[in-house]
Amino acid sequence: MAGYQTFTTEDAMRFADEHSGLFGDHSKLSCEEFGDGNLNLVFRVENDKGSSLIVKQALPYARCVGESWPLTTDRARIEAEVLITHCKLCPDHTVEVLHYDAEQAAILMEDLKDYRILRSELVAAKQFEHLAPQLAAYLANTLYYTSDFALTGPNKKQQLGRLLNPELCLITEDLFFTDPYCNHERNNINIEIRNDAQQLWHDETLHAEVAQLKADFLSKPQALLHGDMHSGSIFINDDNCKVIDAEFGFYGPIGFDVGSLVANLLLNYLGHFGLTADTAAREQHQSYLLSQIETLWQQFAEQFKQLLSNECREPTLQNNLYQQRFMQQIFTDTLGYAGCELIRRTVGLAHVADFEHITDSTQRAHSERKALQLGRELIMQRHELSSINQLITLLRYLK
Amino acid sequence: MAGYQTFTTEDAMRFADEHSGLFGDHSKLSCEEFGDGNLNLVFRVENDKGSSLIVKQALPYARCVGESWPLTTDRARIEAEVLITHCKLCPDHTVEVLHYDAEQAAILMEDLKDYRILRSELVAAKQFEHLAPQLAAYLANTLYYTSDFALTGPNKKQQLGRLLNPELCLITEDLFFTDPYCNHERNNINIEIRNDAQQLWHDETLHAEVAQLKADFLSKPQALLHGDMHSGSIFINDDNCKVIDAEFGFYGPIGFDVGSLVANLLLNYLGHFGLTADTAAREQHQSYLLSQIETLWQQFAEQFKQLLSNECREPTLQNNLYQQRFMQQIFTDTLGYAGCELIRRTVGLAHVADFEHITDSTQRAHSERKALQLGRELIMQRHELSSINQLITLLRYLK
Repeated sequence: MAGYQTFTTEDAMRFADEHSGLFGDHSKLSCEEFGDGNLNLVFRVENDKGSSLIVKQALPYARCVGESWPLTTDRARIEAEVLITHCKLCPDHTVEVLHYDAEQAAILMEDLKDYRILRSELVAAKQFEHLAPQLAAYLANTLYYTSDFALTGPNKKQQLGRLLNPELCLITEDLFFTDPYCNHERNNINIEIRNDAQQLWHDETLHAEVAQLKADFLSKPQALLHGDMHSGSIFINDDNCKVIDAEFGFYGPIGFDVGSLVANLLLNYLGHFGLTADTAAREQHQSYLLSQIETLWQQFAEQFKQLLSNECREPTLQNNLYQQRFMQQIFTDTLGYAGCELIRRTVGLAHVADFEHITDSTQRAHSERKALQLGRELIMQRHELSSINQLITLLRYLK
Repeated sequence: MAGYQTFTTEDAMRFADEHSGLFGDHSKLSCEEFGDGNLNLVFRVENDKGSSLIVKQALPYARCVGESWPLTTDRARIEAEVLITHCKLCPDHTVEVLHYDAEQAAILMEDLKDYRILRSELVAAKQFEHLAPQLAAYLANTLYYTSDFALTGPNKKQQLGRLLNPELCLITEDLFFTDPYCNHERNNINIEIRNDAQQLWHDETLHAEVAQLKADFLSKPQALLHGDMHSGSIFINDDNCKVIDAEFGFYGPIGFDVGSLVANLLLNYLGHFGLTADTAAREQHQSYLLSQIETLWQQFAEQFKQLLSNECREPTLQNNLYQQRFMQQIFTDTLGYAGCELIRRTVGLAHVADFEHITDSTQRAHSERKALQLGRELIMQRHELSSINQLITLLRYLK
């Protein structure tokens, strides 16, 4: 990283111009930086005809809970490699990377300016019928084709060795599986649910299950995950959605990606108890979310099974009974990781707008308690539940 | 590998002399090559005072079923790294590596000339009471201290990335999990048990279980395994035993190492039906083997649990209930992989002297049938069995 320099807007324009033919020879370029400045610089470079690209540069530190700690800029390489791999496997729903520069830890990618962040849209109760089918296709294709069903042992090990991602995995190991289950200073807890949070710290039965889920996160490299599959990593418009921000990508348990996404839809469902006062409107949106969750799992599972039947290159894993059990195990993991995501977004460091935008803290506490309760149930009952409808039933009967 | 040259005895002497102070300044050295010549050259370098060392050089090909195929000499690095790591964790029972040379793919190591190969000793019905306790200590220490209980996520990933070992893992993937369950030309089947072997090829219920065990071999990097833990990889004498030959080492499921060793003791048990005609002598040796198997598991489990209680550095994994389930899961995997080893040593490519030394082919078929039957039972019943005594009961009631 000897030549690494934080980009100015001029650097970003030069970088974008140099590595893409989009702007043409006599374009007049402009540039704005609009990242949140904590982890990365994000520039939009645009010419006078309205063509634009994004330049994302990794900063050599992360700012979190007020303090700053060093964080490898190698994560830009990981993000680029994961996005390029996923884009080959599902070009319709992965942001396109045009160039990656190792020295500057910078990625040039398409600008999704006709898209908006899914989380903001869902908080505003916007609905997209194509959400679930498109993300089901993204998950099925990216996860299947990077698994042992599709890759030989040596090919998979080669990929895995390039994408171990120790530093960013460690962040997830801590924030997702450790902090919420103890009195950690990084936790961020609404005072009104402090008692509920404390119960998590002493729930040994729950801790045993979370330990299993963490052990699998550490040592079950089933497929190349996105690794941060929440509704802030998805851009959407009326026709399409695309996944971005893959710096947490690594080889891990398939259910982690699927479960993270399911949980983020559930967080929105629970958030609307406080976000949407009008009962009919709220119920209509919640019912939309349930149908999306159901469709997401069903279409993901159906496509994954289809790929297992038609595309499995590993003879030993072509066995029907094994494949059925594999799908059930992915479902079990999905519920478990969804439960962890619900809990850590409620009492851990990083919260979500779906709850934070509830201005009344008692109303927020109401949604938060349901998230903790549902999270715990999903983790504890994940081996008993066998269909996505049972999850929905569980949700309906929350106190 | 530009400067790589197959060692002559002179090269081996020079290499040993240069990288050890053992021989002193005016030693007269002699050298003999005594490897089987298929994978490696193995030299004993000795001085006139009787001090000696071993030089092991990896050949850039493997000879197998008559043909020769290229095989990375990087396996010498893997062997050296695994042995050095294991020797730090269990110096009493791991052969000591004095030097490793990357260019020549050569390892200088202690000469275990006062030791003999365990397999030959067991075939000759020799008995060693320290066998099980010492190997239990080797397995518990090497496997525990390279697991997620002892290493941080980033530390483990760093080790794992250095020891992916794709080429040698692929050999195991094929020979252990694929070939024995189909009509593969590499298989080596006693004509008298051909019908029994054929049953394996069409046993879909068994294939589903073997698929799970193979999937875990591919994607469950729990600890740094020896990877080839059979009785030909163990040197023994009246006081001690030491493990050698770690070129198959990689991060995999703990039960693979434990199960391989258990299976090799079981193969010897079954082999003596044909090796030892005298019933009393046979029963006495078999009873010795059963007590060693029992002790091996019990002491391994006890020491591993002790380490879990006292040395677990990962807070989330300190949970008692989780650790109990973890031990049960290791036991389940141990039985499953032991079953696979029994089957592949009977109908796969690489057989063992415990059976091959039975001169009468009908008698050999008798032992082989029991191995297939026991192997299948262990794989199929591994989730139901909860104690090592149940394995022994299973063995006693074999038809």
